[in-house]
Amino acid sequence: MQDRLEDVKAQIQTALDDAMAHLPQGELTDAMRYACIGGKRIRAFLVMESARLFGIEDAAALPAAAAVEALHAYSLVHDDLPAMDDDDLRRGLPTVHVQWSEATAILAGDALQSLAFGLLSDDRIGTAETRMALIAGFAEAVGARGMVWGQALDIAAETAIAPPDLVAIKRMQQAKTGALIQFSATAGAVLAGQDPEPLAEYARNLGLAFQIQDDILDVTGNEAETGKRIGKDDAAGKATFVSLLGLDGAQEKARKLIRHAEAALEPYGEAAGNLRQLARFVIERDA
Amino acid sequence: MQDRLEDVKAQIQTALDDAMAHLPQGELTDAMRYACIGGKRIRAFLVMESARLFGIEDAAALPAAAAVEALHAYSLVHDDLPAMDDDDLRRGLPTVHVQWSEATAILAGDALQSLAFGLLSDDRIGTAETRMALIAGFAEAVGARGMVWGQALDIAAETAIAPPDLVAIKRMQQAKTGALIQFSATAGAVLAGQDPEPLAEYARNLGLAFQIQDDILDVTGNEAETGKRIGKDDAAGKATFVSLLGLDGAQEKARKLIRHAEAALEPYGEAAGNLRQLARFVIERDA
Repeated sequence: MQDRLEDVKAQIQTALDDAMAHLPQGELTDAMRYACIGGKRIRAFLVMESARLFGIEDAAALPAAAAVEALHAYSLVHDDLPAMDDDDLRRGLPTVHVQWSEATAILAGDALQSLAFGLLSDDRIGTAETRMALIAGFAEAVGARGMVWGQALDIAAETAIAPPDLVAIKRMQQAKTGALIQFSATAGAVLAGQDPEPLAEYARNLGLAFQIQDDILDVTGNEAETGKRIGKDDAAGKATFVSLLGLDGAQEKARKLIRHAEAALEPYGEAAGNLRQLARFVIERDA
Repeated sequence: MQDRLEDVKAQIQTALDDAMAHLPQGELTDAMRYACIGGKRIRAFLVMESARLFGIEDAAALPAAAAVEALHAYSLVHDDLPAMDDDDLRRGLPTVHVQWSEATAILAGDALQSLAFGLLSDDRIGTAETRMALIAGFAEAVGARGMVWGQALDIAAETAIAPPDLVAIKRMQQAKTGALIQFSATAGAVLAGQDPEPLAEYARNLGLAFQIQDDILDVTGNEAETGKRIGKDDAAGKATFVSLLGLDGAQEKARKLIRHAEAALEPYGEAAGNLRQLARFVIERDA
């Protein structure tokens, strides 16, 4: 899996560089490019590997994988803004608004969202019908019933009188990070016109485990490895899976979700080896 | 034309209300809905009337017209943020970040952009090919070579040592407001699979005249009519068409552009009557 992840990383970097090389150059594109540096590229890997399950070539899956990473980069730039989570460090670098300005960070995020939709209209992906199916699903996963809604719920929870319970946190996380992970993991089935449900089940379990591991790393991780500030949730008194389940309980919950994620891949047999390994990686990672 | 404009306004309000009725309800959707209140709906009118030139029914053009207005609403919400133009009044109401918070304004803008792309995937618009052509053009008009780029140039000009000249201001405005106006005015031709060039020529002239009139109203208008703060450009020492051409020069330039816009409609004959009237309205309006 590591080899394939490195391969996907290299392909994504080239695809994003190409997409931005044709834009007018300046501070805006510099900030967009900067926002896309690094990252684990897990979402892109999900797109590329789910496509491979159905015999779809990398060249056809790549624009969608790049779109998901551009979108993810936008969400981090906006989440890090002073008015949102107010973070100064991301992927080991100063955040975009620290490096440039709040205005540039807002605009770079906005332009990365447009870029993502533009990438999904690339005709190397397949027929217009296929691209339309992807775009409709993408708009749902991103907007006011997907990622952006999740971030709004997260921010509302911080100022709520009663802290959220486990049900509320799960709902928030399924929207905030789960929707885009599910889009990514089912992209291959959509590209192939096949039933996305087994991959959706895999993704729901994977996405939640991923978030629990993020909460665990906010307690046990260090900034040199994660490339972002840690201990922030605890300092803010924020309810997380760790604060609600305890460290052991959160780890046990994550392991159980990953077993469910692996089980969901049953229909694909050996071909899903990389997706199985990714599931284990998600809870074993320390960054 | 006024009757048709009122008719378009009502249709757009219904389409946007419908699109947002199916989202999870809360502060985020309240802010999105609020951001979409009012407005002249000129962009929607351009979509609907350019579609009518080619015999395309309102029902097929409406999702695209609503998409353009949702996108325009997002751009206003983000432009009004403290880190950008820092405006507290818009369309006669407190701006979104004043009414709620900066975080809610950032998220509502983000979600309105996704909503716009989602609206363009509505299958009432036409075939998948037609929707894909619209979406690809829309992504270009919005992102880092369109509206967002124009806003970045505008903000950069404010802190530049040398004030921008007429060429730089034209380039900035063609991107900031021109690209979306051109998308709107050519949408009918794209929907019909016809040559968009005459409408593009109309739109380039119309868009620039529209912006010049905005600059004029920032000097001669009043807040009760425009629903936004006036005199801001002058107070900020910002270079505008009025500061560079003088009030008379700017008015003459706008009139000349409108004559060119009307001339570009020649191929459509009488059917383009409403688009001709809109062109005259753009420089006669006081709001």
